[in-house]
Amino acid sequence: MTNLLPNFLAGRLQTGSGPGTPLFDPVLGTELARVSSAGHDLAEGFAFAREQGGSALRAMGYAQRAEMLNAIVQVLQANRDSYYAIATANSGTTTKDSAVDIDGGIFTLGYYAKQGAALGDARLLLDGERIRMAKDPLFQTQHVMSPTRGVALFINAFNFPSWGLWEKAAPALLSGVPVIIKPATATAWLTQRMVMDVIDAKILPPGALSVICGSSAGLMDQLQAFDVVSFTGSAETARIIRSHPAVAERSVRCNIEADSLNSALLDPAASADSESFQLLVNEVAREMTVKSGQKCTAIRRVFVPRALYDAAAQAIGAKLAKISVGNPRVETVRMGALVSREQFDSVQAGIAQLRSEAEVLHDGSAVALVDADPAVAACVAPTLLGCREPSKARVLHQVEVFGPVATLMAYDSAEEAYALIRRGEGSLVTSLYSADPVFIAQATQELASSHGRVHAVSPDIAALHSGHGNVMPMSLHGGPGRAGGGEELGGLRALNFYHRRSAVQASTVALDQLATQAARLVY
Amino acid sequence: MTNLLPNFLAGRLQTGSGPGTPLFDPVLGTELARVSSAGHDLAEGFAFAREQGGSALRAMGYAQRAEMLNAIVQVLQANRDSYYAIATANSGTTTKDSAVDIDGGIFTLGYYAKQGAALGDARLLLDGERIRMAKDPLFQTQHVMSPTRGVALFINAFNFPSWGLWEKAAPALLSGVPVIIKPATATAWLTQRMVMDVIDAKILPPGALSVICGSSAGLMDQLQAFDVVSFTGSAETARIIRSHPAVAERSVRCNIEADSLNSALLDPAASADSESFQLLVNEVAREMTVKSGQKCTAIRRVFVPRALYDAAAQAIGAKLAKISVGNPRVETVRMGALVSREQFDSVQAGIAQLRSEAEVLHDGSAVALVDADPAVAACVAPTLLGCREPSKARVLHQVEVFGPVATLMAYDSAEEAYALIRRGEGSLVTSLYSADPVFIAQATQELASSHGRVHAVSPDIAALHSGHGNVMPMSLHGGPGRAGGGEELGGLRALNFYHRRSAVQASTVALDQLATQAARLVY
Repeated sequence: MTNLLPNFLAGRLQTGSGPGTPLFDPVLGTELARVSSAGHDLAEGFAFAREQGGSALRAMGYAQRAEMLNAIVQVLQANRDSYYAIATANSGTTTKDSAVDIDGGIFTLGYYAKQGAALGDARLLLDGERIRMAKDPLFQTQHVMSPTRGVALFINAFNFPSWGLWEKAAPALLSGVPVIIKPATATAWLTQRMVMDVIDAKILPPGALSVICGSSAGLMDQLQAFDVVSFTGSAETARIIRSHPAVAERSVRCNIEADSLNSALLDPAASADSESFQLLVNEVAREMTVKSGQKCTAIRRVFVPRALYDAAAQAIGAKLAKISVGNPRVETVRMGALVSREQFDSVQAGIAQLRSEAEVLHDGSAVALVDADPAVAACVAPTLLGCREPSKARVLHQVEVFGPVATLMAYDSAEEAYALIRRGEGSLVTSLYSADPVFIAQATQELASSHGRVHAVSPDIAALHSGHGNVMPMSLHGGPGRAGGGEELGGLRALNFYHRRSAVQASTVALDQLATQAARLVY
Repeated sequence: MTNLLPNFLAGRLQTGSGPGTPLFDPVLGTELARVSSAGHDLAEGFAFAREQGGSALRAMGYAQRAEMLNAIVQVLQANRDSYYAIATANSGTTTKDSAVDIDGGIFTLGYYAKQGAALGDARLLLDGERIRMAKDPLFQTQHVMSPTRGVALFINAFNFPSWGLWEKAAPALLSGVPVIIKPATATAWLTQRMVMDVIDAKILPPGALSVICGSSAGLMDQLQAFDVVSFTGSAETARIIRSHPAVAERSVRCNIEADSLNSALLDPAASADSESFQLLVNEVAREMTVKSGQKCTAIRRVFVPRALYDAAAQAIGAKLAKISVGNPRVETVRMGALVSREQFDSVQAGIAQLRSEAEVLHDGSAVALVDADPAVAACVAPTLLGCREPSKARVLHQVEVFGPVATLMAYDSAEEAYALIRRGEGSLVTSLYSADPVFIAQATQELASSHGRVHAVSPDIAALHSGHGNVMPMSLHGGPGRAGGGEELGGLRALNFYHRRSAVQASTVALDQLATQAARLVY
């Protein structure tokens, strides 16, 4: 039996009780470590973070906290090789896919360090201009954003043990809010190791960062009125979190990122030999295969004009056929494993479900794995499905299969395509492929309200754009409805979740005094 | 038996089935009307609003919708006398108290009409500046706010049948989102009448405004992913709304305003003969009695330096002793009734609960009513309670008595006062009384994060300030924690709830095209 990974709570290392839950290598099937959160005094841990961590962080200004983010970047960069080794072993990802998680997390930390430095020594943020409340200008309203006096609990997903931690922790710590991270068990090792390295480097004040690996049982019970909770994962767990008394009764602020049936849309005016067509094909194939399709933002539904359905099926299929799948330690392997055998089973079941409404355009089930035992490894080759009558489909617009799977769909008019895309009932991202700025603007206006991000790929930015599925810290991440209704990142907008907005109605003399402690919030 | 008030749903008048629930005159005890929402086809009504109302409103720009708000103002002003008559009969309020509700609603509509006009013919709003995503400036992110493609359901409170409707409907309609209002039964008549007058004036497109009086059963079941719900009322109902599958599973956006133990804080350096002391005394007496203390924002806890406890008790008590209570039709009456005999019973029970931890400083229970039968009328005279050791109290910081009741509390240091105020676990508003801008700035920094509004009263703005409890459309209304965690008003910030924020990542050529349909959102 492997060892339990220690947790870090109430300012000290603590090891959970019992045998714990094992973490596996999803390619080799070997056990790597175990985690347990049993037996901890959670009330003590949360109070320590809230009181010790919170007051120490709030005693600093934004720039001082930003310096700590920079110091975290240094520590993580110094230990980068060990993180890649953990990712290969525990996530089964190729080096390129591990980078999305590891370097993506470090990049996001660095971004917020830079943003925070610009806020200087302020203790709170000014939101908008003063508004005169009377004819006499002496009495005015100034809206301010103040760091919340609570902890931020993150209940995270298995697909981004690094980026998922830092994209949330960076804005939280910059805001002066202590963080308690509960990583998904399957890939908890990388999160745990990174937190331990940061703790060992003594960058943060005691209580500012805690990690609890294992079960999430009891965590929500600890939350109080000024705490916040951010969850990334399934719609089912999201429902439990939102119904918990902490949220439903005590109004604990809650950010959710759940399922998403993201889409890609080709301009109705595009032809099979257009640059837009080729850009769509490239992006769909890339999105299906990066991290074996285990990205919340990956393209799941691909909408093309009916006349281009066959050409698109062929072109995407041809690209997918070149993807070698198997052991990520082998240099020629382009796609590693899913995170676990459970996910492997879930993706197989999902494909079967989608197939009730779709044809198979490119079949991954027969692909031979490179240096991996198909009976053990959680490897799935990419599968492209297709549907010529997507308006009659139901499952295709509702079921997210979290693997290298997408469905091509034919549409007859732009209006029909918009309506079909909206049948995802709220998604993280939709991407548009067009050389026509008028079409892009029109489609954006139709689709923005049901998406957290609209990514428009036109030939002029073919070499510049950041990709449909890459989440950049300067752009909002989240989506309405099925996607959970949350908002993350988006530059300094990320700080909103960790601040409370208030209207200060006062004499301008008092507002002038307050302004000496504040920085202006500019997006 | 009185008549049922008709509802307006699916573009037509509809009368609920069954005997309905009666509305009473809370002073005379007479029945005024009945309401019923039984037997309506809610699915039809919500679909009509979402599809007909939504697309008609979205086809207009902000300025065109703002013109409709102006037209509503005209209609309401033309019918103002009838609204005052309804308020006297159904809310039992004096003319001055009715004005807070009726004219407050009209003022808020007018404010948003003016704000909306400035947005011009835009179809969406630009949120912040473009951000460069690559070294080459051709690829950038622009965040936009787009009106949500759903309905706004308002489940409202009994204390503001006019203002409570319009402070929500004005930003919703300006945003292009159709409104379905479910007023609290006790005072539904005024809401219903105002909606009918607006409908009769044919200002709004079909489906833009609907009213359902009676039970709220089944309303939440109608909500879909892009709808929003805004609730004002009890923490218990708030819990039910937040746990409903629409919110917990479908991520319907939800704004809650619930209980609040608002506070007033006198500067520790103040003396009994200071202007700040007198300003606090005036404001406390006014807040306790306006609308018989039935304002979510009313002062419930009054914090004064220990040395001024007795002086404050005496000064506030002296003001309360002058308040005549009874039939609002009598000109000398300063305070009318609570909205119902149920509320009367609830306030009596609440006072008894607070008295378990407080002494009675000014007793309202023995005050004789003017032209009102104490066995019938829901009239309660103001009662000031007091507590010399508020750090030992529990109920006083947790139980909101929704009537003319407040508790005076002694404190020993500013830090203790801040901690005691925070024991309200999130409130709508705290007010500060001080001549010292440094103290005001410090207290604001300590208290802003637990309050939606900090109202600082200093002698220089004694004649200018808008009052602790008055909710002005240019300032945020809402509060964290116990107060429900919601945000309303705050100028154009109110539009956020009815818009979805998205990051548009595109070529600047496409962003330029999109900008031709957009206005810049500036707070």
